[in-house]
Amino acid sequence: MDKHKKYNIVDCTIRDGGLVNNWDFSIDFVQNLYEGLNEAGVEYMEIGYKNSPKLLKGAEDAGPWRFLDDDFLKKIIDKKETKLSALVDIGRVDEHDILPRSESLLDLIRVACYVKDVDKAIDLIQKFHDKGYETTLNIMALSNVMDNELMEAFEEIKNSPVDVVYVVDSFGSLDHNDIKYLVEKFKTHLPNKKLGIHAHNNMQMAFANTLVAAELGVEYLDASVYGMGRAAGNTPTELLVTHLKNPKYNTRPVIDLIERLMVPLREKEEWGYIIPYMITGSLDEHPRSAMALRDSENKDKFLDFYDQLTSPEVLHKKD
Amino acid sequence: MDKHKKYNIVDCTIRDGGLVNNWDFSIDFVQNLYEGLNEAGVEYMEIGYKNSPKLLKGAEDAGPWRFLDDDFLKKIIDKKETKLSALVDIGRVDEHDILPRSESLLDLIRVACYVKDVDKAIDLIQKFHDKGYETTLNIMALSNVMDNELMEAFEEIKNSPVDVVYVVDSFGSLDHNDIKYLVEKFKTHLPNKKLGIHAHNNMQMAFANTLVAAELGVEYLDASVYGMGRAAGNTPTELLVTHLKNPKYNTRPVIDLIERLMVPLREKEEWGYIIPYMITGSLDEHPRSAMALRDSENKDKFLDFYDQLTSPEVLHKKD
Repeated sequence: MDKHKKYNIVDCTIRDGGLVNNWDFSIDFVQNLYEGLNEAGVEYMEIGYKNSPKLLKGAEDAGPWRFLDDDFLKKIIDKKETKLSALVDIGRVDEHDILPRSESLLDLIRVACYVKDVDKAIDLIQKFHDKGYETTLNIMALSNVMDNELMEAFEEIKNSPVDVVYVVDSFGSLDHNDIKYLVEKFKTHLPNKKLGIHAHNNMQMAFANTLVAAELGVEYLDASVYGMGRAAGNTPTELLVTHLKNPKYNTRPVIDLIERLMVPLREKEEWGYIIPYMITGSLDEHPRSAMALRDSENKDKFLDFYDQLTSPEVLHKKD
Repeated sequence: MDKHKKYNIVDCTIRDGGLVNNWDFSIDFVQNLYEGLNEAGVEYMEIGYKNSPKLLKGAEDAGPWRFLDDDFLKKIIDKKETKLSALVDIGRVDEHDILPRSESLLDLIRVACYVKDVDKAIDLIQKFHDKGYETTLNIMALSNVMDNELMEAFEEIKNSPVDVVYVVDSFGSLDHNDIKYLVEKFKTHLPNKKLGIHAHNNMQMAFANTLVAAELGVEYLDASVYGMGRAAGNTPTELLVTHLKNPKYNTRPVIDLIERLMVPLREKEEWGYIIPYMITGSLDEHPRSAMALRDSENKDKFLDFYDQLTSPEVLHKKD
């Protein structure tokens, strides 16, 4: 009998971190990451997106993890215990690219969408489910969703074959009370589904929020090594494996990955708690304006940025 | 009638941040910080230590905030709404250095000690109280204290004139459940005292823990701008003023302080979420070994450091 709670850590370093460096990870980097995560006892590694380059213009220069190819994966990954996951976006995936699971290294396909597209997401999920994959539905930007929309979505989700439904804090704006509120709501209305959480660290709450969710019964916990992910990044994998009480997790290989792979990478690429991301998080909005600022010569003009986002004109434009 | 909860943010940037740069803050820096915190609605600024240089060998090269002088303070600070605080350590303060409050710019004197020295701390607090100061008692390293010692300390504290008793997470090792446990215990056994919290950010939980404590009724919330403090640093002041629901707080001046003062300083000095501090936090121990590592040529040898701290020999030495 296992007295420990069963969690599934889903490491998103390559997929969400790829949003930082345009998926410019070497094959060696990804192989090392996979080996290390496997040693650490991490259950899933999300190794990229499985969208179609035909449906995403202007992405031709991205690394191979932007448009995963099954043959390529088979060549480079020596499959171990850690399962492989890929994310797809509504309208960007060609379902004919998805092989039956028995012919693919992928185990899990996750579908990300806004609440208004849940019907389209479920349509895809049904197909991936029929091909033998585990599936998740990741409803983004929950902090901007009205209750009636969410309740409608729950009705559709309940009757779908999706295995896991995610609470996604896209803007890093939620605190522990918000997480509690959402998780309880999901539990009430989706009693037949497992739950997941994907947090962003704009307000330094990603890890704490993930722990709160885990204690409330959320089983799928997204993370990335050294927190690498879009803008403020994600829950750090190293903190989850260290802090969750389960002897199967091993911190040492993750420390090793950080020393060898992530510290050198962080010197070239930027993510984490940076004030413009804190500002967009506190205002409950997408970090794209902050990302544009950090890409400009005004990157350290925090006060101007704050004034712009909080000026009455900008606030009215949002109405 | 004020419908908002009354909090007191105690900004420790100069005092705790001074542990990072040996209190090498210019007068201009400290004046700017005071003005900005006052505009932001922050209730207290801890402007340094009030220990005696006679009782602290080898500290002669420290900046003036290491050994605060009342005449110096009067010359440089144009006192506004934000109150001033100083910290003292047991055995390091000469009580004759402490003027009556009516002759000083200081409003609050905080006494830090380990649980075994609570009697000495209360002796000092009685004297500062008699001189007219507000007082706090900051019991450090609570995660390493046994319950019987703590209960004994509570008995003494209950009958002392101290205004506020602090829960101090010196090692940054506590999660929200630990904070809840400690705050409830303090509330039960010290019903006549206000409570405070001082958190460290080793595991990215300082802000989240401070919010949890605040919701449980803790009124004094330590923070520092951009999180500047020893090792992994503290709860960021900018997150508290942004997130606490009280119209008196104003985020804009803190963003301004970060842009003008803290980003340039962070380029020269180091604090924050750095893996060796995460390791000591997760092991529930003082960050001094990690601080020594970061001061050495092996600063990025995270795995060796982890192996040292978790080797059986080291673990047995701790027994």
